[in-house]
Amino acid sequence: MTSLIEESEASAEVRAVYEDIKATRQIDWINNFWKALAVHPPTLRRMWATIKEVMAPGALDPLTKEMIYIAVSVTNNCPYCIASHTAAARAKGMTDAQLAELLAVTGVANETNRLANGYRTPVDERFLNA
Amino acid sequence: MTSLIEESEASAEVRAVYEDIKATRQIDWINNFWKALAVHPPTLRRMWATIKEVMAPGALDPLTKEMIYIAVSVTNNCPYCIASHTAAARAKGMTDAQLAELLAVTGVANETNRLANGYRTPVDERFLNA
Amino acid sequence: MTSLIEESEASAEVRAVYEDIKATRQIDWINNFWKALAVHPPTLRRMWATIKEVMAPGALDPLTKEMIYIAVSVTNNCPYCIASHTAAARAKGMTDAQLAELLAVTGVANETNRLANGYRTPVDERFLNA
Amino acid sequence: MTSLIEESEASAEVRAVYEDIKATRQIDWINNFWKALAVHPPTLRRMWATIKEVMAPGALDPLTKEMIYIAVSVTNNCPYCIASHTAAARAKGMTDAQLAELLAVTGVANETNRLANGYRTPVDERFLNA
Amino acid sequence: MTSLIEESEASAEVRAVYEDIKATRQIDWINNFWKALAVHPPTLRRMWATIKEVMAPGALDPLTKEMIYIAVSVTNNCPYCIASHTAAARAKGMTDAQLAELLAVTGVANETNRLANGYRTPVDERFLNA
Amino acid sequence: MTSLIEESEASAEVRAVYEDIKATRQIDWINNFWKALAVHPPTLRRMWATIKEVMAPGALDPLTKEMIYIAVSVTNNCPYCIASHTAAARAKGMTDAQLAELLAVTGVANETNRLANGYRTPVDERFLNA
Repeated sequence: MTSLIEESEASAEVRAVYEDIKATRQIDWINNFWKALAVHPPTLRRMWATIKEVMAPGALDPLTKEMIYIAVSVTNNCPYCIASHTAAARAKGMTDAQLAELLAVTGVANETNRLANGYRTPVDERFLNA
Repeated sequence: MTSLIEESEASAEVRAVYEDIKATRQIDWINNFWKALAVHPPTLRRMWATIKEVMAPGALDPLTKEMIYIAVSVTNNCPYCIASHTAAARAKGMTDAQLAELLAVTGVANETNRLANGYRTPVDERFLNA
Repeated sequence: MTSLIEESEASAEVRAVYEDIKATRQIDWINNFWKALAVHPPTLRRMWATIKEVMAPGALDPLTKEMIYIAVSVTNNCPYCIASHTAAARAKGMTDAQLAELLAVTGVANETNRLANGYRTPVDERFLNA
Repeated sequence: MTSLIEESEASAEVRAVYEDIKATRQIDWINNFWKALAVHPPTLRRMWATIKEVMAPGALDPLTKEMIYIAVSVTNNCPYCIASHTAAARAKGMTDAQLAELLAVTGVANETNRLANGYRTPVDERFLNA
Repeated sequence: MTSLIEESEASAEVRAVYEDIKATRQIDWINNFWKALAVHPPTLRRMWATIKEVMAPGALDPLTKEMIYIAVSVTNNCPYCIASHTAAARAKGMTDAQLAELLAVTGVANETNRLANGYRTPVDERFLNA
Repeated sequence: MTSLIEESEASAEVRAVYEDIKATRQIDWINNFWKALAVHPPTLRRMWATIKEVMAPGALDPLTKEMIYIAVSVTNNCPYCIASHTAAARAKGMTDAQLAELLAVTGVANETNRLANGYRTPVDERFLNA
């Protein structure tokens, strides 16, 4: 059974991460993913530092990053991640039409990946330099 | 061994698809994925109609769609698809920095998918309605 | 680097398995999969006993079993397995049209698997009893 | 949360697809997969046209196609798809013994795929031409 | 719906396997995995013989083997397997800290696997001989 | 095509990471994984910090961690990762017998994961609290 470390019972080390999550995301609650990682504070700290850095705006905007996250989570079938990143993307403005197109591309990519495998298609020379 | 149907030996049915691919993409050559599918014309025809529809500009722009395609292909490790869609995304303007951030998000999503699985994290109620 | 145990250098234990593979399959050579497993004779012996039992004719005929094997190998993208089981299925009579339909179904199943995941589709009650 | 478009609330475009599904399959109800896709009619229409074409009798019979679908869905662990295609295969006559052998082959293929990977087995030259 | 063969209704063949499972593991109950396989006694028998051999102490100790099992099950997201092998590993002495490090390594491996794929990293020559 | 940043052409930032990799691992060369990541220094820096922390001795010894890494890489079929982590594990003392048992467990786990999925086995109540 999953142990979830609630804010009220968190150590100072864990609470500091929770506070940074809330401040960075401008929200007032902590979702279960972090509460589960908090049983091992080094993982909580490391994973949050990673997410904070990788998901920050950069050459790609935050919504595009969330949609990439959904595409991966759907491909791997991680129910928790699909639910949480769909919510995050919607909070960043993803429309129903964008979600539908994202899922359509994800589905078709999963299909053609297998056709390329199954037909053992050799990589075109022009693509080797891409 | 993969049979590749070259343009010069293609039936009228196959050639018609090849011509539409070249016209739609404004290119003058056919990559191996399509030449391999051409051994079974119904698959070639259906798959091209699907790609043409799903990858067209819509609620998401074509570059975002290519990046989602890369994220899926990297997650599944399809070498052909990684090479061809990286080339396609670059042709649509993807920069080195965008590719690097796309791969970073893809990698981290693959990581946190497994942490969510491994810790058997229950989905937060707030996410159920997302 | 992979060590391959050739028939000429095989121990008596390994040679006995090799002979049974050749006799069962009515062939006169051993493919690399078995030569690689032979570095660990218990794995060679166990794996061959398993394959011999599971791939034997039963409620499903051997060609159907080979096609299921290809569908799985294509989904996982195992290049060795795709090559070897495509060869095996062809030796059992698989036609080009059958291979093409098998790959089409495999591709589409990989697509709809992700659509079902991505839309978080609840299982219909009627299917729970199937 | 998944939105499911019920028949009673479907647009004319969606209803036309639903009617074709019911007529083609000779059933009187629509399962949730289609009701979920119906939030994006182009996906519903495209996906149904694909399934209708790919799953039709051809070089492979419909039951074999359903069993390949199950093998893929089990490999990817898509609970919805496992449930729905097991039901579909049973409706097409799949026996308990056939399901058991199908799952046995699927399991063993997933095992040997990893042994081939892990031992980095080079593809036999004879298989390159298969 | 899954049929589970309870001990009280098991055939002599199935009961013999159940008894060997209980004796080998020194437990007094049978978990659902075996009860589900028991609908097809050849699969039950074969799978138990395989597990009994592969999971026995050898060059690797049983706890290390259970942790490898968890890493695979988490990577594939098999909820049943994650639950049952986490329980088995705990029964063999796995601590909270060991589980946390196991999940951390599993997560990071899933991440770097995709970075190696996405960057299409050529294998170093020194590794070819490893 | 993959760009590899050689030590001789590395920026000060990249060189600092390379030096830390060599010092930490007590080796005198940099493998291609890091040279590929170096095209995006933030990813190089972050990924090395992660690996350095996660793979350090802790509740699990470094060889056990390498074997878990191999199990994941084999399951995902990442050829680069299989080669590099097999080499790393051998450098830490992994024997042929240990590798063979590791691959056997990895293979069997991939098999039973699918049997549990395919039979839709409900999780035993006793495992829910594990």
